[in-house]
Amino acid sequence: MIPGPIEFHEHVLEAMTVGATSHVDPGFINIFGETIEMVRKVVFSKDAQPFIVAGSGTLGWDMVATNLVEAGENALVITNGYFGDKFGLCLQNYGANVTFLPSNTPGNRPSLEAIEQELSKKKYKIVTVTHVDTSTGVLADIAGLGRLVRQKFPETLVVVDGVCSVGCEEIKFDDFGLDIVLTGSQKALGAPPGLSIVVASQRAVQVYNNRKSLPASYYAGWNRWIPIMQGYESRKPTYFATPAVQLVMALNVSLKQLLAYGVENNFAKHREVSNKVKDTLESWGLKLVPVSRGVAAHAMTAVYYPEGVQVTDLLPKMAAHGITIAGGLHPTIASKYFRIGHMGISVTQPERGHIEKVLKGVQASLRQCGYKC
Amino acid sequence: MIPGPIEFHEHVLEAMTVGATSHVDPGFINIFGETIEMVRKVVFSKDAQPFIVAGSGTLGWDMVATNLVEAGENALVITNGYFGDKFGLCLQNYGANVTFLPSNTPGNRPSLEAIEQELSKKKYKIVTVTHVDTSTGVLADIAGLGRLVRQKFPETLVVVDGVCSVGCEEIKFDDFGLDIVLTGSQKALGAPPGLSIVVASQRAVQVYNNRKSLPASYYAGWNRWIPIMQGYESRKPTYFATPAVQLVMALNVSLKQLLAYGVENNFAKHREVSNKVKDTLESWGLKLVPVSRGVAAHAMTAVYYPEGVQVTDLLPKMAAHGITIAGGLHPTIASKYFRIGHMGISVTQPERGHIEKVLKGVQASLRQCGYKC
Repeated sequence: MIPGPIEFHEHVLEAMTVGATSHVDPGFINIFGETIEMVRKVVFSKDAQPFIVAGSGTLGWDMVATNLVEAGENALVITNGYFGDKFGLCLQNYGANVTFLPSNTPGNRPSLEAIEQELSKKKYKIVTVTHVDTSTGVLADIAGLGRLVRQKFPETLVVVDGVCSVGCEEIKFDDFGLDIVLTGSQKALGAPPGLSIVVASQRAVQVYNNRKSLPASYYAGWNRWIPIMQGYESRKPTYFATPAVQLVMALNVSLKQLLAYGVENNFAKHREVSNKVKDTLESWGLKLVPVSRGVAAHAMTAVYYPEGVQVTDLLPKMAAHGITIAGGLHPTIASKYFRIGHMGISVTQPERGHIEKVLKGVQASLRQCGYKC
Repeated sequence: MIPGPIEFHEHVLEAMTVGATSHVDPGFINIFGETIEMVRKVVFSKDAQPFIVAGSGTLGWDMVATNLVEAGENALVITNGYFGDKFGLCLQNYGANVTFLPSNTPGNRPSLEAIEQELSKKKYKIVTVTHVDTSTGVLADIAGLGRLVRQKFPETLVVVDGVCSVGCEEIKFDDFGLDIVLTGSQKALGAPPGLSIVVASQRAVQVYNNRKSLPASYYAGWNRWIPIMQGYESRKPTYFATPAVQLVMALNVSLKQLLAYGVENNFAKHREVSNKVKDTLESWGLKLVPVSRGVAAHAMTAVYYPEGVQVTDLLPKMAAHGITIAGGLHPTIASKYFRIGHMGISVTQPERGHIEKVLKGVQASLRQCGYKC
């Protein structure tokens, strides 16, 4: 029950066991084509260009940095924790002139006013935000950001790192006016890790097409991947690099499950379960890392240890109950809090008892640590 | 029976179905650590540094180009077909000054004399060669190349693209004096596609450490991955990007099978089966793409259609027999030949009948095309 990789549905795992399949087998071409179409549906876009490429979610940062920013261009990085900081490093690696707009305290996020003020200072090629910063459990206001930028800074591209959000936090790609949403296969999409998934608006593709220089990365360059993705979607064999066939098959099954459940239903269910987890932890006197419910993610919960309980006490006791949760990750408070993921089938299939089990395990472990709850 | 992805052993597929596992779970850390150690053993190295990263085999080209060559430095690319040409493009993408040394005809390879002559002209940072060019089935003489470079051009790094060779063609990393061997999980190593595997000599790591500039790629930079690989090998939790947990588990099983069978035994068995396939095809009057047995790979066979038989005739007939083989890929002769892969369990477990089935299928299909054999 960490904030990803999450628990997999049995059918998702089974999808990987069909045996060797050529990446240009007509059956696989159809599966890959369907998967591309489903990714577009999951983020509620009409015409955005999805990319599904073998790699970790992190590779999505490279895709943004190497395709959309040219050396010396400005990038504003809104950071609510560890992952925003790292995204900024990746952009710098590719020569972007990065301005960081950090939250004033771990658990908070910069206000839309502060973002508008910063965007007014100079012309930014892109603004990036981590939708759910997995290190702090803080949720960004991507609807507000998208609308602000489309209205007042229409030439700036809005880039959402949705690694811990796509599928379970509300994303309306076209409505919000987003340009990039990126994620990995192993979070709320419910497939094993190993696929980098990026969705780009036609506006972003146009910005890419107007580049003066070639992308610095070969593997992450859209010059390689746009023909491949369009090829698979039009059910034609194409080749640049062998796709992770089995993982694409697994993702195909998990996306079909998600669409059958309903993406809106999934958002609502994740909100409901998140509220239940947070209410329960707060009822035991624990304090959330996010400064208010309004800035707290629904995909996961980051919560401080109560006084007298430490990381070295709680996590081993949880493990003894057969439950894996995660320690802290934000550098300034890492030893003071822990993280529980609640995504995918653990949320949508209550009959599995995952949420109940993790909450009971936390309670029992806290009591073993001498904390009354 | 294409030259990769190859057929998987049932236990390799089963390894992926264990359910969600954290990338920092102690059990998985041990599996990943073991896998790193086994990769080193498979290439017969004492102290080389393996990298196992989520991505296609192609990502290994980026790893070489972004870590070992700085802008304007010279790279000699020995090319025996399509894949050598593309590796050269990747190097150029990262700013290398690339000299191509092509074979004089599809199906041949440049001689060691020609290579020595070219290396004598200027100082090359790296020389690259495709061990088995999957487009032509040509085998490079990497033992000869390694020895030549170590003796006469000791500062040049020897880079072997072993995508279609690692595990089944003879590679003695330390003995041959190699600096890089790169591959993907889905060829002779017998795991599903989605892992880029690179082995670097300590000499190469030293060259990387002495770089003046940072690697241009963020995701492929060794500054990211050296601490991660060393961390997993020393069985300590580390994090840069979530590894493809299920694929690493599958690779762990397939490498254990390979080491249990014996890597030398595997080389010998692939030679034996390759000879049988080639003898049989030649006995029917077919002509191999490689100009002689001495330059032909053992992992696969590329063979011309006999007169009167065409790609549009043979492949669909093979498919009707339930067998997938591959068409041509080398641009100048693509429509004139086809390719059969013979790697992994199809070779080492004759009881599966794969080789017999593919040969019978080719014979029957050729006869259906009106060819007497």
